[in-house]
Order: sequence, then structure tokens, then C-alpha cells
Amino acid sequence: MAVYTHLGADQFAALITEYDVGELVSVKGIAEGVSNSNWLVETTGSDGALDSAGNPQTRFILTMYERRIDLDDLPFFLGLLDHLSAKDGPVPRTIHDRTGNASRTLDGKAIALIEFLPGVSIENPTEAQAKAVGAALAGIHLASADFADTRKNDLRPVDWQKLFDQCGDHLAEIDPALPGIISQHMPRLLSEWPEDLPHSTIHADLFPDNVLMLGNEVTGLIDFYFACTDITAYDLAVTHAAWCFGDLGTVFRPEIGAAMMAGYESVRPLSDAELSALPLLAQGAAMRFAATRAFDWINTPDDALVKRKDPMDFMKRLEFYAEHGHTAFRRRAI
Amino acid sequence: MAVYTHLGADQFAALITEYDVGELVSVKGIAEGVSNSNWLVETTGSDGALDSAGNPQTRFILTMYERRIDLDDLPFFLGLLDHLSAKDGPVPRTIHDRTGNASRTLDGKAIALIEFLPGVSIENPTEAQAKAVGAALAGIHLASADFADTRKNDLRPVDWQKLFDQCGDHLAEIDPALPGIISQHMPRLLSEWPEDLPHSTIHADLFPDNVLMLGNEVTGLIDFYFACTDITAYDLAVTHAAWCFGDLGTVFRPEIGAAMMAGYESVRPLSDAELSALPLLAQGAAMRFAATRAFDWINTPDDALVKRKDPMDFMKRLEFYAEHGHTAFRRRAI
Repeated sequence: MAVYTHLGADQFAALITEYDVGELVSVKGIAEGVSNSNWLVETTGSDGALDSAGNPQTRFILTMYERRIDLDDLPFFLGLLDHLSAKDGPVPRTIHDRTGNASRTLDGKAIALIEFLPGVSIENPTEAQAKAVGAALAGIHLASADFADTRKNDLRPVDWQKLFDQCGDHLAEIDPALPGIISQHMPRLLSEWPEDLPHSTIHADLFPDNVLMLGNEVTGLIDFYFACTDITAYDLAVTHAAWCFGDLGTVFRPEIGAAMMAGYESVRPLSDAELSALPLLAQGAAMRFAATRAFDWINTPDDALVKRKDPMDFMKRLEFYAEHGHTAFRRRAI
Repeated sequence: MAVYTHLGADQFAALITEYDVGELVSVKGIAEGVSNSNWLVETTGSDGALDSAGNPQTRFILTMYERRIDLDDLPFFLGLLDHLSAKDGPVPRTIHDRTGNASRTLDGKAIALIEFLPGVSIENPTEAQAKAVGAALAGIHLASADFADTRKNDLRPVDWQKLFDQCGDHLAEIDPALPGIISQHMPRLLSEWPEDLPHSTIHADLFPDNVLMLGNEVTGLIDFYFACTDITAYDLAVTHAAWCFGDLGTVFRPEIGAAMMAGYESVRPLSDAELSALPLLAQGAAMRFAATRAFDWINTPDDALVKRKDPMDFMKRLEFYAEHGHTAFRRRAI
């Protein structure tokens, strides 16, 4: 949770005049995002920015990019939102300023104003909700097929290995079993990682806190700041690993996994090659999050603003996928 | 800034059903408050909770009381909001649950749902804004005259002295001049503190971040969690000390002070006794905030979530009031 930069009312009010959104009514720093500062901004609205129902948009998320994000990537991230929202994908639209820019500079940092979307983040999805999430993910895969811009994924297997290497001997301090699990699985992931599967723009981080829902409907996919061009089915593997485990993330929920798969395939059927690669891709997804969590664990002070996340949760998921992946990703009637 | 407790979507949705406010649409943790967790909650609205214009209220602040606040005081704080809002004071109304309670328990902690008010916090007020703040403060003093409940101020001169005593030798670590300033002024504040001035319910913490404004209009006075029964004019002294200094809080802005006084007296004229006590009351106000800041400075880790505030800013204001208070509080044409 974070608002890293203090901005005064004068700065907000002046910023808002650069957009055709009416006058500033309210601004609240919100406790979301670890690499950015975010504010929920309310304005009087104008005909310059209409919501999907054609009414003046009055609520926005103002994001200030503080760190981690390479500003050269900002046009990719914001362009992707524009591309997907133009196809009525459930993503926030960017609000362009009066001169047409999707991002500006404030207080020396890049900022963007994007649409506020309703919905809440679901932690323990029902089957209907998991199905909707799978379908929404497939929807953005289809919708991004003609998105021309590309971005390299900087968290591929070789990058996980580099992160573990930088952790060095500290890995065993997190958990004595951690180095062994890495050396058992990492070589295979490096050598067997598939390169011949379909690629597309992927979200690459579609955890529950990046999905807004109302009931069984997905109202928003947000936080595209890991989006990149990579193996399409890997995105499903990431989402599967992020959503389908209960009891604090350690016990697979087969009915949730099956519902997510069914939802995905209702929009974008998987090829046989993709389907049979999913157990390995899911092990990779688990390893990827274990790698960044281990790195952050070692490099985050005990009492920092950002709560540390235990990488071992994902190692347990990796071991599940290594042992039961072929069963978990078998197509089932739903 | 803070959200100290993690609540899931299920918990929020279940909580909202306890109120007649419609269904949950959105919830965002907000980065405000150091002793409480706060969320901005949006619902579909219902006829059970109408805003001041008679439309269904759809936005609320959910506060969870985490620490510092004595729960026995909660009925005083929430009852005061009900009392003032019933008189159309610019304070958030509390939303009572379906059984009529202004507060409930969630996850073992007390919570309250209150009205969301528009407006932004002004850091560098204009004269018109300072006048409006003074008038709004006087307004709640008048409106609370028949508020029957009382609460002892637990930050009176003897309490400042106790806080300094607990800081002990560490005071000089904050600033070598600090112990000398305290010993120069504290005995006089203790012995000369007036007990015969009019008392009433006071806000006691009306800093700029506790006032919401749109243009020159005060749209909300918020965060009444220091409210208590004490010297009425002391509340004006606190507000004066909090608002009327520029250049990072060290240089008095006479035109802002005069505007605030004029605004206050346009609603509630001060007696001669109150007017002549203001220089001393303002020194006390400065000492009170220096005392809690010094205590927090020493008892807050360097890298804690809550940013430390330098007590010396208020010692400079105290010295200003000691030397120039009689000029600063002279009535002027505005």
C-alpha cells in the first residue's frame, strides 16, 4: 500500500485543468500498488470524457510512476489499455490530456489519469467467478492480437535464475528447503521452456487483486504494468497458479481450476500443444513468483511499508504442478 | 497513511448488508489517518440513506478504530457528528446500521460507516478560505452548545508536561534548543492557563488536512477524534496555529490570521476575556503539538509507516506567539 509522493490541493487542481474532465471535487490517496502512488480523483465531469454508458466520467485513478517501471515502457502499457478498451475489453480507459497525451509529468514524475472502474477484488472465487476470470483473460488475448506494440518479458526463466543467483546464500535463510527445490526444478524449466507456442500480449500478473468483479461479472482487469509479449498460455498458467489454491495458497481447488479452464476455452480454445504444455508453464509461473518474492524478501527491510510475501507458498504450488499438473489441466465437463 | 487491517471482499459485502445503503460496488483502502484504517466504500444506494440533496447516498467512509482511540469515547465522537449534522453543520453524518447502531464490530474491532464528503484539503489558504474556516469553526461551537455529552481533554497543559517528562534526555537529540524552550515557557503555561473562559465541545485538531473545501466553501470538517470539552477559544488558537504560518510553518501570515479571526467573529464574537487570552492559548496550542510530536518522534522508529513530524516547527510558532501574540490577535478590518 502506498502513496509515496505528497501532492497539494493546488497541484491536483492545476493538473486536472490539463484534462477535459471538469473541476476537481475530491482526491484521496489510495492504499494500492507497491511501485506507484495512486489517488482516487473525483471531478464535476464534462462531455470530454464519457463513461461506457455515455454519461460524463467523474471518477478517475491518478497514477504516479515512482519506481520499478521503465518510463520507456509507459507508451506500451497505456497504449495497450487504449487498444483493449476501444474493443470494449473490461480495462480502464486512459484519459488523454487536452493536447492528446496519455501521460504527463508532475513534480518531476510521470503520471497518467485512467478511468475508475467499479468492482471488488475476490479472494476466494466461486466456480462461476473463476470461469468469468478465465473468459476475461482469453478475451484480452484475442483483443490484443492486432495490438502492434511489443514489450519483452523481463521475467523469463533465465531472469528467475538471475534473481536466485543474486539471493545467494540468503535463500536458505528464508527456508532451508528453498535452495534444494530451486536446484531440483530450475534446470528443467530452463531447458524445457517451450519456444514454439503461440505468443501474444499477456497480462502476466493477473492475481485476484488485479481483477475487479461485481457478483459473477468481471468489471475490470487492472494493473497491466507487467504486461509483455510472451507465450499466451503462460498467462493462463500464471492466472491458474494465482487463483486456484485455497487454504492460504497451498491446497489445489480442482473445481476452481476446471472452471477457469472452461471459461478460458469458451472464448479461446487451447491447442493440444498449449494444453500439454500447461503443467510445465504453471511450474514456471510458480517459480517466477517465488523468484521475485525471494528477491524482495531478502532486499526488503523487516519493517518496510511493503509487506513481504513468503516465496514458499509458490514452491508448494510448483511441486503440486510438477506432480499433478497433467491431472489439474485435463479438460473436464463443467 | 494507513490501512492496518486486511479485509476481504466477502467481509465488506457482508458488512454492507447490515446497513440500508444498497449493495457493494467498490471499496478502496485510503491513505489517511494514522490511528485508524479507512476505506472509501461505494454502494448502489437506497432510500435508507439520503444525501443532503435528498438523493441516495452511494459513497461512504468506513473507519476501523485500530489504536489510540478509547472505544468508550466512540459514542461521544459519533454522537457529536450526529448532533452537528442534524443542524446542517458541514460534518459527515454517521450511517446507522439496520438495528440503529452508529458503530459495529468487524473482525474484533470497532467500525463506523460515515458519509463521504466532497472537497480537498487546502495547505496554503487564501484570505477568503481562512475566513471560511474560522466561520465554520465558530459554527460548530455554536451548534454544539446544546450537545449534552462531554469528554475530558486528555491533552491539557499538565499532560504536555507529562509527555515531555517521558521524553527525558531524548528531547535534546531532536534539537539541542528544545529543552530550553520547554523550561522557559512550560511553567508559565501551567500557572497562567485560564480556567474561567467559556467552555464548549471543541474539535481540538482542526489542521488543514481535517478540513475539506471546494473553492472558498468549507464542505467538510472531519476527524473529530480529539474532540473534547474544553476552552472554546483554545480551539480557535489551535486552528490559528495550524493554518496561519507559511514557509513550512515558520513565518506568520498576518493577513491569514486576520481573515480567520474575522470569519470566526462573524459567527461567534469573542468576549474581551477570550480575545486577550488568545496569545497565551495559542502558545499553549503550539506547545501541545510540540509535545505530541516530540513524544512520537522519540517513540516512532526511523522507518515506520507514519512519517515523523518535527516538533521544532511548533516551538517557532510558540516563540512567535509569545513575542507577537498581542499584535497577531488584534482585531483588524478585513
